[in-house]
Amino acid sequence: MVQFHPVLGSLKSYEAGKPIELVVREFGIRPEDVIKLGSNENPFGCSPHVTERIRENASQMYLYPDDSYLDLKNELSLKFGVAPERILPGNGSDQVLDFACRSVLSPGDSVLINRITFAMYKIYALQCGAKIHSTETVPHDLDAFLDLAKLLRPKILFLCTPSNPAGDALSKTDVYGFLERLSPDTLVVIDGAYMEFAAKKDPEKSLSPRELTDRFPNVFYTGTFSKVYGLGGMRIGYGIGDAELIRNLYKMRPPFSIANLSAFAATEALRRPEHVDFYLEKNLAQMKRYEDFALERELTWIDSYANFITLFARKNGKTSDEICRSLLRQGIILRDLKSYDLNAIRITIGRPEQNDRVLEALSKEFA
Amino acid sequence: MVQFHPVLGSLKSYEAGKPIELVVREFGIRPEDVIKLGSNENPFGCSPHVTERIRENASQMYLYPDDSYLDLKNELSLKFGVAPERILPGNGSDQVLDFACRSVLSPGDSVLINRITFAMYKIYALQCGAKIHSTETVPHDLDAFLDLAKLLRPKILFLCTPSNPAGDALSKTDVYGFLERLSPDTLVVIDGAYMEFAAKKDPEKSLSPRELTDRFPNVFYTGTFSKVYGLGGMRIGYGIGDAELIRNLYKMRPPFSIANLSAFAATEALRRPEHVDFYLEKNLAQMKRYEDFALERELTWIDSYANFITLFARKNGKTSDEICRSLLRQGIILRDLKSYDLNAIRITIGRPEQNDRVLEALSKEFA
Repeated sequence: MVQFHPVLGSLKSYEAGKPIELVVREFGIRPEDVIKLGSNENPFGCSPHVTERIRENASQMYLYPDDSYLDLKNELSLKFGVAPERILPGNGSDQVLDFACRSVLSPGDSVLINRITFAMYKIYALQCGAKIHSTETVPHDLDAFLDLAKLLRPKILFLCTPSNPAGDALSKTDVYGFLERLSPDTLVVIDGAYMEFAAKKDPEKSLSPRELTDRFPNVFYTGTFSKVYGLGGMRIGYGIGDAELIRNLYKMRPPFSIANLSAFAATEALRRPEHVDFYLEKNLAQMKRYEDFALERELTWIDSYANFITLFARKNGKTSDEICRSLLRQGIILRDLKSYDLNAIRITIGRPEQNDRVLEALSKEFA
Repeated sequence: MVQFHPVLGSLKSYEAGKPIELVVREFGIRPEDVIKLGSNENPFGCSPHVTERIRENASQMYLYPDDSYLDLKNELSLKFGVAPERILPGNGSDQVLDFACRSVLSPGDSVLINRITFAMYKIYALQCGAKIHSTETVPHDLDAFLDLAKLLRPKILFLCTPSNPAGDALSKTDVYGFLERLSPDTLVVIDGAYMEFAAKKDPEKSLSPRELTDRFPNVFYTGTFSKVYGLGGMRIGYGIGDAELIRNLYKMRPPFSIANLSAFAATEALRRPEHVDFYLEKNLAQMKRYEDFALERELTWIDSYANFITLFARKNGKTSDEICRSLLRQGIILRDLKSYDLNAIRITIGRPEQNDRVLEALSKEFA
């Protein structure tokens, strides 16, 4: 019998947000009546110019991608002001997170994460046989990170800012102060999946990958096209770092890891910033409706620098599980944070008419 | 300074077939004048119904994929007659090959491959710190595999049939006889990327993944949509095995590893077998033209069960390198097998009008 790697015994799978297909299958609701606000997608979709580009290029699906991904890297290079050699493209930022783990971790190495954070850091690190340690608070506590780092000498430390699934964000000053005090031997992964939202709301919460990685060669910054660019289905992300760091991480990259249509879509999306601006405006205005709702009903929420809001469900002995299941039966997909050990719901800020329906449904739950 | 995993020092990157973009950039040839027959893509493209489906669904790019990939697995299940639980979808068959390596290999483990074979087996195994051993002949020599397996007790053994980049194929009888004599502790990966072509040419060279994995729970069969289905750009492959094997390999799968449009494309492609039949007919007829060409000029070639032909370049002191570079300047991309230590050229069988140009150009080289 084939003997599997011992590490497989400790692995759990990622619990993904529920897809529309599942609600259709389980509750017999028509796809067009489902409101999907559980996965922090851009509810307005991608730019219509991107859709057009894909329609025009659909006949190219038989050709392998240009494995240099030069066009995509050149556009990212323009956006961030870093040389293309400092950019590592991936099949979602997920894949570049995986490269980071596999490039430095050996079994038994320590990895340090926030108590509540994106679940894949732990999964990828466990696949490498690493030991996971975490801080104790919901928002990132950088002093706690420093204390633990001194003790554990982690090979990797993950910061997620703005934080998923909580929504809070670190300030530039705090992050720079932290990096100056941390050992340069630790690879610091800064996951900026939601950075564009933070930059819009408060420039002090905005981190520049160029500045970060110029000053700190031990920082690996990651970004994605799944959020603000509205391309979650197409699986495109990237990592930015010092040239030497990227050269090393590149060795873990399999060829052709991004589909050609995905690379076309991301390249076109970068050329259409007006769609991003439109969405960022809408997101802030619609977020306010959820804050007002929580305020009126005296619900606790976390101030969000992203495209979602985390509401605690503790009023009237309610559980997040009950609320999410009740809304799911009405065709509304939200994210229950029970699996993160929080009695809270994470709601992606939707289009105005979607938020109407969600707020109406939530009114009944919190009546 | 960040210390990288020692294994990174021994890694080389895959040398991909040249993309059209490169020929355009380097030689100033118009994209529409480039003939790309270096990567074994379906030169007729995918089914027009698949292209249509992608155009219709382009507005769905903002939604994460259904991570169960149920529709795709159901169609594959119908094609192969295995339960969906025995199917592992991947971002190209590349990704499921990587899962296989990472699920069983620890540093120092042995892996056994054919002398000339798909380059990624070695790359993924080296990423796991494994030791690579190979047989000595260009076609697969199953007796040599057995002898070496007894000696080395490899954790994984890779068979590629039809073989890339050589084109020869193993017979059903030989493979079954081999598997019966091999230790069931070895995971046998059978890469059937080109199996549809073999099945068309000679049913005795066709392996059924269901029969194989029903009888041998240590076999992992892999397939792809990049070849006969004409979807190389979209990165979709799959693995088939015994339910327990798949359950284990599934643990290495990151969420959403296939783009949603890619999954739609593959699902639709499986529903349109007539396009595959059309291509398989054309491929055989056009292959004959290359065989006739080689026969007339007394060139050596390998009888091919795939969508390419491997011609040896040894006539008149020619090198494969010279020939490939000369054709590249004319806008014709072929694959030089120099990096496989063969003075040979691998030519994807193209559309009739493409083959006209290639044969004309080759005539001058072998004049």
